[in-house]
Amino acid sequence: MLNNHIVEFFLNPKSIAVIGVSKNPMKGGYRILNNLVSNNFSGKIYAINPNAEGELFGVKFYNSVLDIKDEIDLAIFYVPNKLIPELLSECIQKGIKGAIIEASGFEEIGKEGLELRRKIQEITDNFKKIRIVGPNCMGLTRIDTDSKNEEKSGFFSSFLVFTKYKRGNIGVISQSGMLNGGYFTHLTTKYPGLGFRYICSIGNKMDLSEIEFLEYMLEDETVNVIALYLESFEEPRKFIELCKKAKGMPKKRIILVKGGITSQGQKATLSHTGSISEDSKLIEALIKQSGIIHAKSFYELFLYARTLSMLYKENKRFPKEGNASIIVGSGGAGTILADLIKLYDLHLPELSDQAYLILESVFPPWMPPNRFALVDIWPAMEKAMGEGTDPNLVMKSAYTAVLEDEKIEGLFNMMFCSKQFRPMSNVGILIELIKKSSKPVFFYLIGENREVKEISKILSVNNIPSFSNLEELVQNFRILIK
Amino acid sequence: MLNNHIVEFFLNPKSIAVIGVSKNPMKGGYRILNNLVSNNFSGKIYAINPNAEGELFGVKFYNSVLDIKDEIDLAIFYVPNKLIPELLSECIQKGIKGAIIEASGFEEIGKEGLELRRKIQEITDNFKKIRIVGPNCMGLTRIDTDSKNEEKSGFFSSFLVFTKYKRGNIGVISQSGMLNGGYFTHLTTKYPGLGFRYICSIGNKMDLSEIEFLEYMLEDETVNVIALYLESFEEPRKFIELCKKAKGMPKKRIILVKGGITSQGQKATLSHTGSISEDSKLIEALIKQSGIIHAKSFYELFLYARTLSMLYKENKRFPKEGNASIIVGSGGAGTILADLIKLYDLHLPELSDQAYLILESVFPPWMPPNRFALVDIWPAMEKAMGEGTDPNLVMKSAYTAVLEDEKIEGLFNMMFCSKQFRPMSNVGILIELIKKSSKPVFFYLIGENREVKEISKILSVNNIPSFSNLEELVQNFRILIK
Repeated sequence: MLNNHIVEFFLNPKSIAVIGVSKNPMKGGYRILNNLVSNNFSGKIYAINPNAEGELFGVKFYNSVLDIKDEIDLAIFYVPNKLIPELLSECIQKGIKGAIIEASGFEEIGKEGLELRRKIQEITDNFKKIRIVGPNCMGLTRIDTDSKNEEKSGFFSSFLVFTKYKRGNIGVISQSGMLNGGYFTHLTTKYPGLGFRYICSIGNKMDLSEIEFLEYMLEDETVNVIALYLESFEEPRKFIELCKKAKGMPKKRIILVKGGITSQGQKATLSHTGSISEDSKLIEALIKQSGIIHAKSFYELFLYARTLSMLYKENKRFPKEGNASIIVGSGGAGTILADLIKLYDLHLPELSDQAYLILESVFPPWMPPNRFALVDIWPAMEKAMGEGTDPNLVMKSAYTAVLEDEKIEGLFNMMFCSKQFRPMSNVGILIELIKKSSKPVFFYLIGENREVKEISKILSVNNIPSFSNLEELVQNFRILIK
Repeated sequence: MLNNHIVEFFLNPKSIAVIGVSKNPMKGGYRILNNLVSNNFSGKIYAINPNAEGELFGVKFYNSVLDIKDEIDLAIFYVPNKLIPELLSECIQKGIKGAIIEASGFEEIGKEGLELRRKIQEITDNFKKIRIVGPNCMGLTRIDTDSKNEEKSGFFSSFLVFTKYKRGNIGVISQSGMLNGGYFTHLTTKYPGLGFRYICSIGNKMDLSEIEFLEYMLEDETVNVIALYLESFEEPRKFIELCKKAKGMPKKRIILVKGGITSQGQKATLSHTGSISEDSKLIEALIKQSGIIHAKSFYELFLYARTLSMLYKENKRFPKEGNASIIVGSGGAGTILADLIKLYDLHLPELSDQAYLILESVFPPWMPPNRFALVDIWPAMEKAMGEGTDPNLVMKSAYTAVLEDEKIEGLFNMMFCSKQFRPMSNVGILIELIKKSSKPVFFYLIGENREVKEISKILSVNNIPSFSNLEELVQNFRILIK
């Protein structure tokens, strides 16, 4: 662990001053304090507002950090941009060593903002006197326990209040504040099983950038998956070096969404985080050289993160060649899947003799199985039902055949979810087989929405990824290959 | 309307014999009868089984069609493949003019199946004596009223029983049976607002093919959107001709998923519908020439169908140039969206002076809006909240600015869905503005899952498409341009 790393200091403060706390619930400062207190921050908290008195959420107001006697590690700012330089000076005077500036109005607003930045550089002696995260960010989040835990704990400094979350193996580093607020809320309520360890919103990265956070998360064993959203690369060479280092680590993967990969996107980043245009070809080359996973959107980023998170938790063996097998109950779905597998440079190999013999034994003689790894299971299911035997045994045979075939590195199983067909699709039996295997199994679920959700949830609890879109399924398998 | 068209005869039979009805609920014949009866088929129904007596669902059993005195329009087959030739001969003898063969075991199983096909061609004098839909299909569905309607009606011949559906403007023609069963169930329960008119499963298309169904749906005014899944093209030239005809029609669009676009997919189609390889380049050229919308998966197919269905219902004007505008509360989302818009060959034009002036009036002076059509609304919202004015008025101004700008052809609006922020995002006000405008508005929803679903539902009822994936949103706008 990097005990002396600056990010360790920022993620584990012992005492905090929140500058700009308001008693108005519609203001960010109110919500930052709410977030810290309601999520049991274990250190000391001080609320700063020159005009407020009394207390809020049990935290006493001070008019200035200079009025506080005890030592303070970090200051969190939520005040208008123009007030920052003076208040920052006070923090330096007080001996505070780090500041998270969530307020906006700096590089992204042009001339006036750049002048503010110059002032801050001067006051801080180029960030030597105090280190800065932000500005224009949504703070840092460290999750120690699940929100359902009675003694929930961690460090929550976003101005959106977190109420539902799980501790997990994903770390986020993002230039979009929304990732430490909107998306996080979206993900934790949509995929209740998905757990996070850190969500670090770095905003305009006036001082600390993705580099420091990446360094830290690479060394932190609690993090397996690092999800990045960047609008610019602070130090491209260093970035590539760190990514290459990650490639050599057995339980570490990095996924990146890059904002501003087109001229139009670059116009947008300029007014968002003040990030200055980079050449599209350079970006492309850099991403390629770094060997990380490139996602096109936040949606893709988190779907990949979910898949990786689940498979790491289950210690699955990741594919090397991309040899997959399919078990489907729809020839149409099988066909589309076979096409997509080919289009994404994966393979459906020939089955071993042993696997084929197992399959042959459950198929009707007039409709033998394919010799290649596409198993359209429907005729075998119909045969079983016709003979009055349990169709779940057919599925068990198919799973055994495919998962024990040495060449096969993973399985895609389509399941039709319907109350009517529940007796034919006992997901419990399948989960048992999947848990025993070292190979990843992905589900493609269609059918009655309620049943789809129910089964998706059961699979999710068991760290088995499921999809309702075949292309997504194939993409999520594709990224497993290093 | 094509009153004398063969498809009219198949979709609107007056009397039906279901051949192979079983009293065992796990058998297809049982479920076909259940589907017809429970969905109030208004014509006469006869159940045929040489060994059964009595009745099922109030329908009397006969041992053969030859035992029935009245005239019969259609026979639906659900019996083992080998029995079909003889039973088909009986149907011809009885004067039945059409057969839907849902049983499998024909072209797709090779030699033996091809011999069966040859026999059928002989018996039917090359389909002159009786016309055939299938084999290896899931029947035809015609939806006249919603399932919630007390007097629900239509023609439901799939061996999966339909319980929830809405009548709408989408027609499906598919070589995958799952579309007339699994996907349909999935879609109607996932998007309760989505309505269908016909779902035609054509299987191996031994006689009738996509051509006849396409001809019919092009003339049928109740159908705006035609969703196709094909594993082969029956008559490529005729297909292109029909697609080109559709291009000239104001309220008709065709979307296609083609199975077997790779060598691997073609191996799959051979064992699915017996479709024989087509050259990948020829397929590509054919799709391009036809000018239809090409979807990569069933998921994409139905997302496109949903979008088109909604916009046709609302009489929206479709974009010609691809000029869009964005209103977001997250700079990161705005950036990714700007990139995607460029990557998909759409545009974010400069705003008109009038639009800019409206926006400028609600933005804080230190953070003016962009001159191009990306509106990051957050500073304006914060300003309103700070001043104690209603932030919904800010959204109203932004909508007015953008929707009244002549150059802009559509709007993408990101909404953060959260109980906490409900007062700031009154979706009712926005729907009113959208209903008045001729331009399509798409929502990008993120936030608390429950709130996202709730708002998505409200939007859906109002025929406003919403997405949780920015790339999907952009793709769905892109396909609107002819």
